[in-house]
Amino acid sequence: MPSIYITGVGMTPFGKRREPLGALIARAARQALRDAKLETVDALFVGVMNPEEFVGTGNTASVIADRLGLAGVPAIRVETASSTGAAVLHTGCAAIASGFYRRVLLVAGEKMTHLTTARVPRILAEMLDREERACGARMPALAAMITERYIREHRISLSHIQRIMAQVAIKNHYNGSLNPLAQFRQPITEAEYYASKLVSVPLRLYDCAPITDGAAAVVLTGEVTDIRIAGIGQSTDLLPLRLRSSLAAFRATRLAARRAYEMAGIHPEEIGFAEVHDAFTPFEIIATEDLGFFEPGKGGRAVEKGVTALDGPLPINPSGGLKARGHPVGATGLAQVVEVVYQMRGQVEPRRQVRSPALALAHSVGGLGTNNFVTILERADRARPLIAVRSPERLQPERPPHRPRPIQGVAPEGVIETFTIVHVPPEGFTPPLPLAIVRDARGEMVIARGEGLRYLKIGRRVFIERREGGFWFFPATVFEMARRRVQQLFRGRGRRG
Amino acid sequence: MPSIYITGVGMTPFGKRREPLGALIARAARQALRDAKLETVDALFVGVMNPEEFVGTGNTASVIADRLGLAGVPAIRVETASSTGAAVLHTGCAAIASGFYRRVLLVAGEKMTHLTTARVPRILAEMLDREERACGARMPALAAMITERYIREHRISLSHIQRIMAQVAIKNHYNGSLNPLAQFRQPITEAEYYASKLVSVPLRLYDCAPITDGAAAVVLTGEVTDIRIAGIGQSTDLLPLRLRSSLAAFRATRLAARRAYEMAGIHPEEIGFAEVHDAFTPFEIIATEDLGFFEPGKGGRAVEKGVTALDGPLPINPSGGLKARGHPVGATGLAQVVEVVYQMRGQVEPRRQVRSPALALAHSVGGLGTNNFVTILERADRARPLIAVRSPERLQPERPPHRPRPIQGVAPEGVIETFTIVHVPPEGFTPPLPLAIVRDARGEMVIARGEGLRYLKIGRRVFIERREGGFWFFPATVFEMARRRVQQLFRGRGRRG
Repeated sequence: MPSIYITGVGMTPFGKRREPLGALIARAARQALRDAKLETVDALFVGVMNPEEFVGTGNTASVIADRLGLAGVPAIRVETASSTGAAVLHTGCAAIASGFYRRVLLVAGEKMTHLTTARVPRILAEMLDREERACGARMPALAAMITERYIREHRISLSHIQRIMAQVAIKNHYNGSLNPLAQFRQPITEAEYYASKLVSVPLRLYDCAPITDGAAAVVLTGEVTDIRIAGIGQSTDLLPLRLRSSLAAFRATRLAARRAYEMAGIHPEEIGFAEVHDAFTPFEIIATEDLGFFEPGKGGRAVEKGVTALDGPLPINPSGGLKARGHPVGATGLAQVVEVVYQMRGQVEPRRQVRSPALALAHSVGGLGTNNFVTILERADRARPLIAVRSPERLQPERPPHRPRPIQGVAPEGVIETFTIVHVPPEGFTPPLPLAIVRDARGEMVIARGEGLRYLKIGRRVFIERREGGFWFFPATVFEMARRRVQQLFRGRGRRG
Repeated sequence: MPSIYITGVGMTPFGKRREPLGALIARAARQALRDAKLETVDALFVGVMNPEEFVGTGNTASVIADRLGLAGVPAIRVETASSTGAAVLHTGCAAIASGFYRRVLLVAGEKMTHLTTARVPRILAEMLDREERACGARMPALAAMITERYIREHRISLSHIQRIMAQVAIKNHYNGSLNPLAQFRQPITEAEYYASKLVSVPLRLYDCAPITDGAAAVVLTGEVTDIRIAGIGQSTDLLPLRLRSSLAAFRATRLAARRAYEMAGIHPEEIGFAEVHDAFTPFEIIATEDLGFFEPGKGGRAVEKGVTALDGPLPINPSGGLKARGHPVGATGLAQVVEVVYQMRGQVEPRRQVRSPALALAHSVGGLGTNNFVTILERADRARPLIAVRSPERLQPERPPHRPRPIQGVAPEGVIETFTIVHVPPEGFTPPLPLAIVRDARGEMVIARGEGLRYLKIGRRVFIERREGGFWFFPATVFEMARRRVQQLFRGRGRRG
């Protein structure tokens, strides 16, 4: 790992901001430059997820360079959906390590709150697979299906996962209440959590990160400072959720983490605290497992025991996380790094200061876990010197996962692999909307809309039918099975004759 | 300069393509991987300018990684408006030079032709300054104003520049007629050029690059191959045209070229041929001057003498350029590099093969010259060994240019710095639409809409007035001047009293 150091950071307050996108980014950037005691840099990297549709402007790298008085400086925009802020950091690391530049300014931001609550999810849905979108699935619906699968695989009851999710929300809102930059500054109670409306079973409103404006900035350098980038790792995954090797964990997080740990030459147990991508509360649980902090299925127990609390042995999201600090999609990945630096430098409010700030991790999820990043930072005065164990062989990507053939025609029978009931569906769909990922008789996976709510259970046998707009599933009753068998028999005869 | 080599290239035919964006990019990528004899890579960089608005999908890096069977491989999208393809190449160079990756796949593409001819310019206009957009200026209008200023500064007559522009169009269409991947495969005559409709005085339809679908791909490696990246340079400039240090040249090209030449340790005279960004025919002339091939104002003469023809001493755009090969905005910068590689390897049709293919340059313009790239490639067997003259000091950006204060209130008098008459204005504007950049009495620059066409001349004194929707200018007749003086006098008295 080449020597890459952080020499300046900046971040705006997150929330509903009146300033336009450029002003937000400029504010964070000026803070970071002032912090680095620099007036200019050799290059600029800009992370915004979708300025074209959120604010109606393009050419963002030039716009920001101009706005910062840096016209002339090379500037490039990078984007990886909701992990864009982390992609900016990793691109900046390569720029420094390449020797092309000695000091680079990284900025990331997003402006979202001025749009209607119908328009924002529509823009965010562009991150998803077309077929999964077409049947009415949006981010929360797919996150809910992951949650249902997670509790099934780890034999956790619905009421138990709800208690765990509530604990994550309560912890992150409490942390956010201590963070002056957070969008939500009020702690929440368990009663308030349960009173919040169901979005997509089992996710409630308090399980979902809010819509947020905000920006963050970092100055990287090759010269020694107090904070060093110890390791970086990134991985993609298949776009459609239904085709992935696991519906209850994120392979992209695991691969990214493995690469980052190897580059840093450390083990997960050495990490003192972490900022993880809790776009949905169960994602924080799954992330802490994918990152190797806890065994698969044990992340929830750790929350209940207070392990991940501010005063626990491994604080998770001391900033409040995406849940309470807010989630301006393009900014989040970089904001996590800024928070880590503030913690490492002891620049946060005393009640929010973690105890072991010398080695930390930031984890960012792009799309629905399709483009994830792990970044490991360390204080330069950390006692144990790092051992470089970087092995290019081990950094090679795994063999790409099997991608099944797309379904052709009707596959009459299948089994529910996971499901949800969407209570806040997109335009054109009526709540409650049952959705499921169904494995058909040939082993192919389809996403389908359901009829009726009573038969929703993982493992349940269902019939699948392709109608206009996608697949539908309905319960495989004895009568229905018999009727279809007879129908098939006649169809087969008709064809042969 | 670290050792960065090209080991594989691929490109789709350009034009109106039936395949969706993902299929186009996948086709170019598979060609490049096959050419490189590789099945996988360490990382993927994806250049698309605006897939969100052109084709309605986001999360493009993941989408393309998945589509190529590379899910798991790190993938990042980069964007710099219409120079996106070049930004991908430069980002890939840093990725190899950093040592993070040994082989990276770069892909770039755009799908545009399925949208209406009204919608495409609206999306492209998002690259421009808001105020310049607001008064009805689009890319061609601003390019036309640059052309008017160019001929004024170099004392070229309107009829002379038109002959030169015709020559550029004819040359590039001829080159394109020999290129099986080009969008336009028919040579054009001078008569056809003059018969094409006026878009924005003095630009005709045949001066403007078309709307195109297409994709290109390159595999970079740190291991020695037949083609080496010798130098790269990038520079931004102020977003508003009116505020730039020159209205008749591109500072961003000059800075980018200087950096690339220094990195490569060569002089412009050593370049054997070049692919330059002829989004508008006069841009090719200006580029060849900004790149140091010809003295300022002498680029047109070089075209007339056949210097830049296929069989001339310095062929420019042997591919047909953006003009004839086509301009899928995100793809173009990388397609230029693929063309250079085909030429260097002797893989083009014999009639299109340039004579000195050992050292070449690709030049890409982002937005209206706000984010420009220069890339120098050389054949590894080139006789003269390169001398590394890279000096980090000289690579520092120039001091950012002066950015004037925005206009406050009305500045009654000014002088036309440049102008155009738009014959194909955007929705809500009536042709012919006179536009001008006017310098007011305090030296501030405004873009303004005009009344009447007779008084349009650089250097003409005009009155400026702010009305709803921006500034307007109109001729400063003696009568009007007297009337305004009297009016001002009374206003002044009124205020004092």
